[in-house]
This record gives sequence, C-alpha cells and structure tokens, in this order.
Amino acid sequence: MTEDLIKQIDALFHPESIAIVGVPRGMKTGKLFLLALLDQGFPGQIYPVHPKADEIDGLKAYPDVKSIPGPVDLVIILVPQHLSLDIIKDCAAKKGVKGAVLFTAGYKETGTEEGKELEKEIVRVARAAGMRLIGPNCMGLYSPESGLSFFPNLPREPGKVGLISHSGSLANILARTATTKGIRFSKAVSLGNECDLKAADFLSYLGQDPNTGVIGAYLEGIQKGPFFLEALRKASINKPVILWKIGSTPEGSDAAASHTGALAGSWGIWEGVARQGGATRVAGYEAWTDALMGFSLLPPELGDRLAVISGPGGLAVSSAEAIGRAGLKLAELTEDTKAALSKVVPPTGTSLRNPVDVGLAASLDMDIYIQAVWCTAQDENVDSMVIVGIGLDPEANRKFVAAMIEARQEFGKPFIMINVPGFDPALAGNYCQAGLPAFDSAERAMTTYAQIRRYQKWREAHK
Amino acid sequence: MTEDLIKQIDALFHPESIAIVGVPRGMKTGKLFLLALLDQGFPGQIYPVHPKADEIDGLKAYPDVKSIPGPVDLVIILVPQHLSLDIIKDCAAKKGVKGAVLFTAGYKETGTEEGKELEKEIVRVARAAGMRLIGPNCMGLYSPESGLSFFPNLPREPGKVGLISHSGSLANILARTATTKGIRFSKAVSLGNECDLKAADFLSYLGQDPNTGVIGAYLEGIQKGPFFLEALRKASINKPVILWKIGSTPEGSDAAASHTGALAGSWGIWEGVARQGGATRVAGYEAWTDALMGFSLLPPELGDRLAVISGPGGLAVSSAEAIGRAGLKLAELTEDTKAALSKVVPPTGTSLRNPVDVGLAASLDMDIYIQAVWCTAQDENVDSMVIVGIGLDPEANRKFVAAMIEARQEFGKPFIMINVPGFDPALAGNYCQAGLPAFDSAERAMTTYAQIRRYQKWREAHK
Repeated sequence: MTEDLIKQIDALFHPESIAIVGVPRGMKTGKLFLLALLDQGFPGQIYPVHPKADEIDGLKAYPDVKSIPGPVDLVIILVPQHLSLDIIKDCAAKKGVKGAVLFTAGYKETGTEEGKELEKEIVRVARAAGMRLIGPNCMGLYSPESGLSFFPNLPREPGKVGLISHSGSLANILARTATTKGIRFSKAVSLGNECDLKAADFLSYLGQDPNTGVIGAYLEGIQKGPFFLEALRKASINKPVILWKIGSTPEGSDAAASHTGALAGSWGIWEGVARQGGATRVAGYEAWTDALMGFSLLPPELGDRLAVISGPGGLAVSSAEAIGRAGLKLAELTEDTKAALSKVVPPTGTSLRNPVDVGLAASLDMDIYIQAVWCTAQDENVDSMVIVGIGLDPEANRKFVAAMIEARQEFGKPFIMINVPGFDPALAGNYCQAGLPAFDSAERAMTTYAQIRRYQKWREAHK
Repeated sequence: MTEDLIKQIDALFHPESIAIVGVPRGMKTGKLFLLALLDQGFPGQIYPVHPKADEIDGLKAYPDVKSIPGPVDLVIILVPQHLSLDIIKDCAAKKGVKGAVLFTAGYKETGTEEGKELEKEIVRVARAAGMRLIGPNCMGLYSPESGLSFFPNLPREPGKVGLISHSGSLANILARTATTKGIRFSKAVSLGNECDLKAADFLSYLGQDPNTGVIGAYLEGIQKGPFFLEALRKASINKPVILWKIGSTPEGSDAAASHTGALAGSWGIWEGVARQGGATRVAGYEAWTDALMGFSLLPPELGDRLAVISGPGGLAVSSAEAIGRAGLKLAELTEDTKAALSKVVPPTGTSLRNPVDVGLAASLDMDIYIQAVWCTAQDENVDSMVIVGIGLDPEANRKFVAAMIEARQEFGKPFIMINVPGFDPALAGNYCQAGLPAFDSAERAMTTYAQIRRYQKWREAHK
C-alpha cells in the first residue's frame, strides 16, 4: 500500500512530459508556471493546452489533453474552478496520465458545501483513472533534480532539504531566498487543500527518499493523523523533520481554515504526535529557516562544549548567556590554549577565559581575531566554535571570512558564525555556501544547536 | 542629592572643552576618540595631551592637563592603567574639570585586589577634586545634540532614545546601525566598570531628561539596587525603559564578571525589581532593537484590534497565529469593508476575512495590495494595520513602500510592516524613516506590540 503510494509520488516528481492546461497567452499569473519550467530547464516535453491558441511562447499548443500526441505524465491545471471537473475528465480520457496539480482555488477553503462536493467528485474521477492529485489551491512541485519548478528563477542546484508546505507562497519564498543560508532542495511540494495527496503521504515519501537528508514542513492542519504519526516516526529515524505547525491559537486556526480549508485540530494532540514522532518543532519563519540551515550544515552529532570568540564584549557575554539558556556549556580551555591566546590577544580590555573577548583592537587588526580562532579551535576541550566577528572595513571582513572558512576546514569542527549588526549579508552568505551556518544572533544559533542535540538523542533512543 | 547628581551628569553631556590624554600620533585604537569628536563636529575646544607631541592632527598638543591654558570640562583618558592615577591627579590639579572618561581596562574586571584598589583610589582622588568618573573599561559618551561621540561615523542627527550600556561595543554597534530602524539617540553612555557613576545614576538622569523619550539599557550587573529601583520607577512613569539584563545563567554571569567586573546578582531579585519598576524586559540584541524601534515609532496607546493584509497566504496565516499568541485580536471587519475589498481583491485564492489574503496576483499588480490596504485602514473596527507585502520587482516594491507611507499619513493609524524574505532591506529602511516600524517577522512585531500595551497598562496603574 505504502509502496504503491511512494511509486505514485515518485512518478509525479519525475515526469517526462507535462501538459499545462489554461496557460494564458499574455503575462498573467498562470504564465508563471510555464516560465518556471522553461527557466528551470525541464528536459522533457511541455504541452500548453489552450482552447484557441496554436502556439504559446514558441511551444505548439493543443485544445485539450487527450489531443496531445505523445504520453503525458503530469498535468498542471490553471483553469477556473468551475471548469476543473471537465479538465480532469479530459485527463482521465487520455491513458497514462499519472497525476495533476490543481492550482486554482475556490474549493473547500471557501467553506461551502459546493466546494467540498466538487473536490470529492474530482478526486473520484481522477482516482478511477489511476491519477493522483496535488491541490487544489496550490503551487505544486519544485524539484531541481528533475527540472520541475512552480515559479521562475528558483535555484537550479539541488540540495538535501525536502519540503512540504500548505502554503505555496512560503515554499516559493523559502526556495527563492534560502540559498543564501546554504539551504537547497531535493524536492518541494505546495499542498494546498490536499483533496487527494496529503502531507502525510509526502512525509512518507520524503522519509525514504535517498536524495532528501532533512525534511522541512509548514503545516496548517493534519489529515490522516495515525498515518502521519507513523510516517513521521519512520522519517525521523532516518533524518530530521523540522515542523512549523499552525494552530496553537484560534486566530491561527481560523486563518488556516480560510487559507487551505485546514482543520488545525487539537493543539495538545498535535504536540503529542510531534513529540512521539521525533519532530523538531518551530514557530515562525525565522525559527524554521534557522533550523533548516542548522540541520543542513551542521553534523548530526554535536558536543556540548562550546568556545566563543568575539570582538564586541557585549556580544561575547550575551553569547555565553545564550549558551547557558540552551543547556549547553562553555568549554574549559586548556592552559596551553590560554598561553597561546595570551601571545596574540592584547592584555587589556580583553578576556582569555571562554568567552574569549579579543577586544576592540581586533576590529582594526583582523589577525588578532584569526589567530585567536586558530589557537582555540585546536583545543581538545572544544567541540564547536561560536564566532562573533567584524572588522572596520569591507576588506578586513573579506579577509576574515576567508580565514574562518579555512580554519574550519583545517580543524574539521563545527564553526557557528554569529552576525554582528552592520556585517554585509552577502559576505555572510559566503559562510553558508562553505558549510558554516551564519545565524542572526547567538540566541537563535544556540536554540538551533540544542535542537540538533535533542533530535540526536531521540534518534539514539529510537533506533 | 539627586539634583546634584543630575547637574553633574548634565555637565558631562554638555562639555565646552575636552582634553584627550594619551591620544596616539599614529593610527591606533586611541586615535578613534579624537576622530570621533572631529567627525561629529564637536563645537568646543579639543586639547590633545601627549608627553612629546607639539601637535596631533593639526591640533596643538599639551604635555599634561594642567598646562592647558583655557578651562577643561571633560577629560578622556586613554593611557595604560598603571599611569591612570597620575593622570587623575593631574586633572585634579587643574581647577574646574567636571569629569573624566576612563577608556583603559585592566581594573577590577581582572579579578585582582590590585585592580580593585586602584579603582578605589582613583575615585577618591577624583571625587575630592569635584570630578565624576565614567568607566574605566568603557567608551564614554555619545550625544549628537552636543557633538560628543565615542566612535567615528556615528549619526549626527539626534533622536529620542537615551542609552545606558555596560558594553561599549554594543552601544557603538547600535548607534551605528539602528538608524535603519528609525532609532536615533539623545544621549548614550558606555559604563564599563562603573567605578564612580553607575547605571542607576544615568537612569535617574535620563528619566528626567526632556530630550529622552525612550530609555534603552544593556546591563551586566546592578549596583546601588534600591536607588536603581527608585530611578527605574520614576523613569517608567514618564517614558518606557527597555532593559536587556545579563545574568539568567551562570555562563552569562561569569562572562559579565570577566567583562566589566559586574556581579550579576540574583536573577529572581532582578526580575522583581524590573517588574516593580515597570521595565520592559528583553533578552538578546534582536529583541532589544525590536523594542527600541517599536517604542520609538509607535504611539504610546495601541488598541488590540489588528488587521492583517498579506499577499503570501502562509504569512497571512502565521501573522494571525502571532497575533493570537501575543494576546491580541484580529479586528472584525465591517460589511462595508468586506464589500469594498471584494471589488479590489480577486475572487479566488484569496480571503476577505481578516487576515486579508490578497493572493498571488497582487505581487504582479501592486494596486491590489494598495487598494486593499486603503479599504481596510478606513475601517473603524481596525486599531492598527499589519502589512506583509512584496512585489515581483524593485520598481513594484518602491511604489508599494511609497503608497504605504502615504496611506499611514492619510489614516493616522499605526502601520506595522512585516518583512517578506527577499525584500530589499534598504527599502524597508524607508518605512522606518517615515515612522512605520518594519519588523523581521510577525512574531517579533507582535511581541513588541504587546510589550507596548503592557507598559501602557503599568503606567496607567502607577500614575
């Protein structure tokens, strides 16, 4: 049963041909789906379907799906809601269509009986013809490894994050911007109303997908609860699952119902499911992306002895406080390390105890920073480095970034970079590209670090 | 007694002449203090003091303070710690010096008896001569209204935030970068070890300062506890006090002791003091600056009925969740408003219920966003607007920003702008310059909004 499901979803992520029904001739929203595939370099056949056009953007168009001469694996349906059933019937009339993405909204999320009934009928027709459906009210699929995309200008380089989202816009925003945090995707799905395929199904799929190393999800409601819990537990044994779930408040639950028709359900039950299933729970976009970055870039096993190197003294102190709050420890530096530090760090306005405060002079002479990092990273008592660094000018910062990337390669320990306000975000992107997660603050970094350790313990206990 | 203190501190913030002792001839750290005053356009006399130089950077230099011909109000002391007592004696020998900033570190924060004793002796000599001291181990004063600065290239335009910081680097980073959040300063002090003047003294001063409308503080420890509580309560009656205090963990407390010799004290006692004193407590740089921005830009009285306008559906839903979590409400839009919205917002993939989801098409046609905001802001049930907006290209975003600033002027209600990842931070800065706070996320915005309402209730109860 689950094996069939996995095969069916896998087929949707690897189509050799796609029909787009209702793609407009001019520049309207629907055109974005065609541009997305062209831009991503989809290697298979693309067939625009349009009642009147002979060609759209240089591609030969067809009046309906069943007139398309070759096979069609996947159909993207952009027509208004009241035409959707006819289109599904058209798809069903053509043999071999494996599934469809229903972009258009106006179904059960409107709260009408009519919307609910229409969804049911569409599913009945599709399933009878062997098709699976994604949506309605969704953006569909993004998978750089297959050349699939739901929006133009998304990254083409695949990565290890598999994404499940009830919100197409969040999936799009994340895919578009998260490369600066070193987050790249194996596969992403925007689920919408889940008339057929549900979050639990994709969780089950991504849990066994060898190209997915981390799963991220934004969920407004959970259908098929027991299957979801089973899929979550199975996935969590293999890889971390980062869940951002709406529904801790009536305000959020009501908004979710208007958005994707989701029934947010009991928050208490959800919390139990997430905990039992080994999920890492987050609330809010920032916490979600922090976790996705941390789990993507840091190794699965992290020690609890951290060393902080900072020029700004206040940020050294507040990093130490954040370490304590997250239940982690400041590493006890060896006497050798302190002796080595005393040779490179100025004697006053600094501290050689961890957190190592390299002082104001370091922002004028980045070698103080760099040598202090070098001295400390070699200490056998230090599991991971937490580095708060900024120089007085762009050239100093470029030198610093290159030196940190080099030091991390040299010592092979995790380097966690903490932003100093005013530091060039583009330069911070270089850290992430090189595998050093760069967090906006020590508080957020340590929250993520502790999450990774908690997940690791859960995994050990459940293997 | 307190009146004397206030006069003394006021004199330090308004010197007509400054001597800088130990300013180096070449480009070393100490030179920054001279460059800071020149760059800020300090209108009074600046006297470099140097044992050998006749002039430094075009200014006539003197071998010691007492040789300076005119009056000297403030002395900035950059010499190594072991020379500091002699310099203080030199200052005391010149009549009329009102105070000194001691930059150099190496006193009680080193943990030695010698360091403590030296601090005591310096204070004894200074106080006997009628001088007050700031530091040691500090950056001193920044006050754009007086042309004072502790670092070059800090903003020259004054504002309403008065800042007290045990960390010079945090004060510097905040002053340097917070203008993009609409945060500007009346006066700022970096306190260091507080051998003489303490956080409580500056709190007392800023509480009555007519140019200070919001007080921000980063504190590693509290000395003069009862006076601090009294100063806090008095200040809080007049203006919000945003306190970021270290010491909730042993890790933070120990690091604070190494940094400024601070004794963080009992966290439980501190919490009681802060609560009784009406302080808004924050933890971490991000929470601190969120609160400073919100309290600077939003009106003191805020209603609890919010309307959300968003294009990204997921961010509409998560904003609603954040509103619920912060104990706020989603405004019930009038039927007139919903009717007006139905004429501008597309019928599907959107929601006219609050949160108003204007859908994907709005990112292609910003007029949908703008008109939806216009329709909603006029609703009498709406106290404040929460807006999550982004267009597909820079031109669309520029148009949107201008329209939001205009709409806020038109309706006079608070407009709270929520970042969509990928939005140009420089453009978001325009919001803040125009008085619309721009938060990184709805979660952080609603946390701040609730803090402002909590403070307002405290103030009503204690007036």
